[in-house]
Amino acid sequence: MDLKSKIRSIADFPEKGIIFRDITTLLKEAEGMHQAIEQMEQKLEGLEYDIVLGPESRGFLFGMPIAYNQKKGFVPVRKKGKLPAKTLSKEYALEYGVATIEIHQDAIEKGQKVVIVDDLLATGGTAKAIVEMVEEMGAEVVALDFLIELEELQGRKTLQGYRVESVVKY
Amino acid sequence: MDLKSKIRSIADFPEKGIIFRDITTLLKEAEGMHQAIEQMEQKLEGLEYDIVLGPESRGFLFGMPIAYNQKKGFVPVRKKGKLPAKTLSKEYALEYGVATIEIHQDAIEKGQKVVIVDDLLATGGTAKAIVEMVEEMGAEVVALDFLIELEELQGRKTLQGYRVESVVKY
Repeated sequence: MDLKSKIRSIADFPEKGIIFRDITTLLKEAEGMHQAIEQMEQKLEGLEYDIVLGPESRGFLFGMPIAYNQKKGFVPVRKKGKLPAKTLSKEYALEYGVATIEIHQDAIEKGQKVVIVDDLLATGGTAKAIVEMVEEMGAEVVALDFLIELEELQGRKTLQGYRVESVVKY
Repeated sequence: MDLKSKIRSIADFPEKGIIFRDITTLLKEAEGMHQAIEQMEQKLEGLEYDIVLGPESRGFLFGMPIAYNQKKGFVPVRKKGKLPAKTLSKEYALEYGVATIEIHQDAIEKGQKVVIVDDLLATGGTAKAIVEMVEEMGAEVVALDFLIELEELQGRKTLQGYRVESVVKY
């Protein structure tokens, strides 16, 4: 199945000049959704890892089914103030301003092998911040797996040295 | 498996007097996470439905694996301003103030049978708002399926007349 044909492109969202890649049209059809998950899983075939991390909110959509199918645990990376126990925080730059993401300090164990799953690789800023948090916790990022990659934003450069996988490229 | 023993209770979060039921300790273990999804699925056994709806963000965690396993599509219900195409909006009351949730107008078809999945049934305010949106779109809510139910908040009363399922009760 051509997944790209199921993804809707919307001009000027969230702001003028941006083409938003809308995955809701893909997800609402069982077949498209299945294919998306399966193709993301195929990218990890043969890889050994312990746990899947996904950032709020769209990383949850893909991270959980992949973790479930692969019999791994899932760790949510959340926006500031959402996680109730002790967290590690990381501030990172956005185009305008900064964002903060958090992870529970006891979410990952030292030495664990981690796969980061998200819907979209754009500039790689969020992914890089998550990689840094994982490494500060003494764990290892063995791959990052995205449904969509916006190649012109060069997220792979930001994530140089890491295994980066993506299914649909624009 | 006793799922309750895997859920961490944290006092005074997000505010004083609230006991927060933290599912991250359950999700990070493959076995606990699997059991949670499977027990939620068992509650829907034999039920005919077309599509799974889950609200941002924790509804995504359970809605997607259930939709995947049951070979259904998944429709995200999101906070205001996140969905890029034409939406239906619904404002609903919180303890202090109001919140707005949105769903794409083309996300559900008239006559479809819908299951709403979320992590937690508290007062039922969010769930009721979603039910109303689904019905305005001419579709039918055949069940609401929660991992956790906070019984003293009487969400079932708010959702009277609908089939409400939950796995872990406090």
